[in-house]
Formats: sequence, C-alpha cells, structure tokens
Amino acid sequence: MGMAMGEGEIIERYFRHLGAVRTDVALGIGDDAALLRPAPGCELVQSTDALIEQVHFPAGSAPRSLGHRALAINLSDLAAMGATPAWALLSLTLPRPEEAWLGEFSRGFARLAREHEVALVGGNLSRGPLSITVQLTGQVPQGTAVRRSGGRAGDELWVSGTLGDAAQGLILRLAEGGAQALPPDAESYAAWLCARFEYPAPRVALGVGLRKLASACIDLSDGLLADLPRLAAASGCGAELEVDRLPLSPALRAVSGDSAWQQALAGGEDYELCFTASAAHAPQLQELAATLGVPLCCCGRLRDGSGVELRRAGTVIQFAHPPFDHFGA
Amino acid sequence: MGMAMGEGEIIERYFRHLGAVRTDVALGIGDDAALLRPAPGCELVQSTDALIEQVHFPAGSAPRSLGHRALAINLSDLAAMGATPAWALLSLTLPRPEEAWLGEFSRGFARLAREHEVALVGGNLSRGPLSITVQLTGQVPQGTAVRRSGGRAGDELWVSGTLGDAAQGLILRLAEGGAQALPPDAESYAAWLCARFEYPAPRVALGVGLRKLASACIDLSDGLLADLPRLAAASGCGAELEVDRLPLSPALRAVSGDSAWQQALAGGEDYELCFTASAAHAPQLQELAATLGVPLCCCGRLRDGSGVELRRAGTVIQFAHPPFDHFGA
Repeated sequence: MGMAMGEGEIIERYFRHLGAVRTDVALGIGDDAALLRPAPGCELVQSTDALIEQVHFPAGSAPRSLGHRALAINLSDLAAMGATPAWALLSLTLPRPEEAWLGEFSRGFARLAREHEVALVGGNLSRGPLSITVQLTGQVPQGTAVRRSGGRAGDELWVSGTLGDAAQGLILRLAEGGAQALPPDAESYAAWLCARFEYPAPRVALGVGLRKLASACIDLSDGLLADLPRLAAASGCGAELEVDRLPLSPALRAVSGDSAWQQALAGGEDYELCFTASAAHAPQLQELAATLGVPLCCCGRLRDGSGVELRRAGTVIQFAHPPFDHFGA
Repeated sequence: MGMAMGEGEIIERYFRHLGAVRTDVALGIGDDAALLRPAPGCELVQSTDALIEQVHFPAGSAPRSLGHRALAINLSDLAAMGATPAWALLSLTLPRPEEAWLGEFSRGFARLAREHEVALVGGNLSRGPLSITVQLTGQVPQGTAVRRSGGRAGDELWVSGTLGDAAQGLILRLAEGGAQALPPDAESYAAWLCARFEYPAPRVALGVGLRKLASACIDLSDGLLADLPRLAAASGCGAELEVDRLPLSPALRAVSGDSAWQQALAGGEDYELCFTASAAHAPQLQELAATLGVPLCCCGRLRDGSGVELRRAGTVIQFAHPPFDHFGA
C-alpha cells in the first residue's frame, strides 16, 4: 500500500522532524500510533480539514502555500474555540513524489507549525489524486472553550483583521496570464492580496485572548455571509451587520473599488475570527487588539429573532438565513 | 467549499449521530472543533489512515465494507499500542452524494464504531475522487502502551488469528466475474475469505490484554514479511520465524493449497497483531486467548542480530530485511 517508491525515504527526509519539538510527545512518527501526554485540567480540541486539488485549490498551486494552508485552516478552527494547538497528523496523497514539491510543501507546513509550536506526530502517505488532510489537536483549560452557541441578544459583533482580501487574491491568482489587466495603482497591491489567500495567518493568539471575553466565536472560512448566520443560529439569535463598518484593506479598496464590501461579505478563505462579546468588554478587546497587533472591528450586534440583517447607510439591504452547516469540526 | 448540494443534509442524515454516545464528548459535530475530556492519568494514542479508490480498494467496492475498513485499519493501529479507542474524525471525499452509498457506508462505520465505543466527533465532506481518511484517538494508562521497540532477544514471537485470509479474499473479489474457477470444495470458503478482507476484526480487546504481557507489538497491515522486520528492527533484534507454525485457516488451505503459507507470509490486510513476549508469559497468553476467543500462535522468537530468518522444516529458506517504514502512526 502507499507509495511504491521511497515512502520511507520521503518521510525521513521531509516529515520525520517536521514541526515543533514538544516534551508532551512521548512517541511521534514511526510506530503504529503516536503517544501524547495531555495537560492536566484541560479539554482536548480536535478538528480536521482537507485541501483537495481542483476543489479547494487550482492545479499547479505553489506547494509551499499548500503546506501552509493545510495547517492554517485547522489552526483557524482551533483558534475559534480559544484552543492552544499541540499535535498534528498529516494524510498526504500525491500523484508522484517530486523532491522539489515535497521540499516546498514541507517547508510551508513546518514554518507555520513551529510558529505555533505544533508537532507533527503521525500521518500517512499514498499515491493518488493530490489531496492534503490535516488533523489537529489542541487544548483549553476545562470549561473555557468558546463555542458558536454562547452569544446573547445585545452582544456586540466583532471581526478581526480585514475581510475579502483572500477571495480577491484568489481571483487575481486565477487570472494570472489571463486577459484581466489591473488598474495601475492596484498592481502594487496584487501580491499582498495573493499572499492573504496563499498564506493566511490563523488568529491563534487572538483566540486564546478571547477565552474570557467572547461569548461566541466562529472562524471565517466560507465568508461572513455564510458563517455569521451559523454563529447567530447556534446562539439562538438574530444578527444585525453594519456593512459600512466592515474592515476593508487599502489593497482591497484599490483593486475591487466599489465592490470591495461585497467581496468582504461573500468572499471566503479569510480565516479571520468573527465573535460576539458583551458591550462591557469593548475596552478589554481594544487592549487585546493593541497588544497582539491584530485589528478588531465592531460591526454589528446580536438581537432577538433569527437570520442576519445587513444594513447600509441605515437601510436594510439584505436578509441572510443560515445555510446548511458544514460537516462539523 | 465542499459539497455544493445538501452537505448539511448529508451530515444530518448520515453522520451527526454516528457511532457511540460517550460522556467524555463535551461537544461533538457542529462547531469549529470538537471538545473532548481525556481520562486522568492516561496518555493519548493517535493514528490516521486513509483508503483511496484504486489504491487501497477497487472501484465499485461495497460501501458498507469501506465504512467498516476505514475505521478498522485505525482501530488496529490503536490495538497494536494497547490503547482503548475513543474519538474519531472522518474526512470523506465523494465524486457525488448518493443516498444508497452513504447509507451503507455510514452503517458499516457505525456498527464497528458502536462495537468499540467510538464516537464520531467531527470531520469534513468534499467533492472529489473517492477517498476516506479516519483519524482515531484512544487512551492508555500512562506508561502502559506497547511499542514496536520493546522486544528483547529470547522473547517469543506470536501472531493472533489466522494469516493470509484477507489477501486471498481480495484475490477472490477481484476475480469475480472473471475466468477463474474455484475447485468445488473451495467455493464454500470464498465468502468467508472475502469477509476477512472486507470486514476485518481489529484486535482491540487483545491489545488491551497485551499491555502487561507483550514486550513489543505491531499490527499486520502489509503482511508478516513486511511488518515483522519493522518490529525486529525497532527492537534492535533479529527474528526467527517458523513458517510451518504459521496459523492458516481451513478456508485458506482449501483455496490456496500448497501456497497457503506464502499467502500467510506475504499477504497484507489481515489486521491481526504480531507481538513478542517473554516465554514466562506463555500460560497467561493462552489464558487470554481462551478468554477472548482469539487464537494466539507462537511461531518464532527474537534473537541477537538483525533481519528475519524464515525457517521451514528446520532449514533457513529466506532472509528478510526491514523495508522502509511507512509514514508512521
């Protein structure tokens, strides 16, 4: 099973020592399973997410970006719960082993793993259509995890960073070599927007900081218009969103012009956090933003009822219902 | 991302309540990540393994078998460590959602999950070439896990169940509708052998029983000829294997005839356990076999040196070196 040629060599060269060294890993890659020592008094937080070629990324995507994103999308799920990440498993399916590809992929994964002190403790390698599945386990002190369901009517609605950049970056990446020309003042922003898609920064430290401040949290993978209704529905509330207050980057404004706010609403892949908090916590949230250097923007609130009301210049412009939930975790 | 049509409906119908109900699951499917409460004083044991169409199973395989096997191959990894399984994540990639397929797949998964008290706590669903990746977490009391590396020269070498059945079952399954005719007395065995491939019984209870008895253990996924050298190498030993003593089922003898022992040596997919133990533990091992109703067969021993010597009728017939290790865990 698996790769006929040099599977062990691939693992030895690219994966055995990938990621952070952790003293709570009693046994890592190389046995039937990994042995890990959870911290006393903590709950485990587990998520898995997959990147599949031509579904989640275009063929020919930069392997370094794929290594980064495969871990980042799981780090973002843990961040939304307020968890500290610890141990990752990697299932990699490759059409053929290519040294250059593996080198870049593992570098992208390793850099982000070390940044967040994540150890790669196991996985598997197979020959087949390119897909990357990461499973991540983290920890939170018992009872401190932030769920989607904790929001209450009256809570303020916040988002981190800027929205819509990644979706615009993907559009630019897909149009490369195509006919689309950017306005002259936008060209300098293109690389930044592409990087927002290819190298998202999961908000792990922010998530930890939100344990005591946020009432509910979700990560923005499918776009605010899809993810906010999920948080509101899980909390048994409706939501009002002030579209004029959405945080837009200068790059997105320059490239998308008047449609920037639509990109910010509907574009996915941002991996920012969307959370709710009592208005009394606003000063502490601003302090947290300053400490971490992560912009936080209050752009709405929860209210009684259901659904999400989008307001612009004081007028209701759209009403969004929760879509079907993704396949959890 | 993921399935365009009815992803949430699929999860609701087929996966949300799959597997066992466990009181240590604080939050299952439906948030960004699952929340789990590890048992005090335990280590976590984690593994992941994938089944990919046309790599690990032929196109058109019975979906109930795939649901069973995707979990079974991971249960077997945990069994080899002596772990008690607890929580699973499932990443499923499907070309298109088909109710009949999903119903059978989820039944196969659920039945085995409930048998071993495994809760499905998260996962993801995507559209793409058929592949199934399961991540499984279990627990062992701290310091009691059985590793590949604990064997010592002089330890006896044991295997559970019978070997080679699954490989022969796969051959029969692949030949169905083909030209191969079975000898008349073998036809009645064919279904049993196919079931050994399609519905392997991971040796979870045996693994738990081996915590205090085995010095080293590995599960037989690639065949004894590939897996035994891995155990021996990890233990820093050589091994002698008495081929005449390999446990062969009546079905395999009937269908494979004189080549049954070769099937038992080289055939994969048995998911039996291969372990070593001090000779002093032989009576307790026989007692464990009787209690669990799982045959255990002593068929060799570890010795100083390296490599694996195969003996038949008192003569060395082959010498096997460890192949490259699979991508761990």
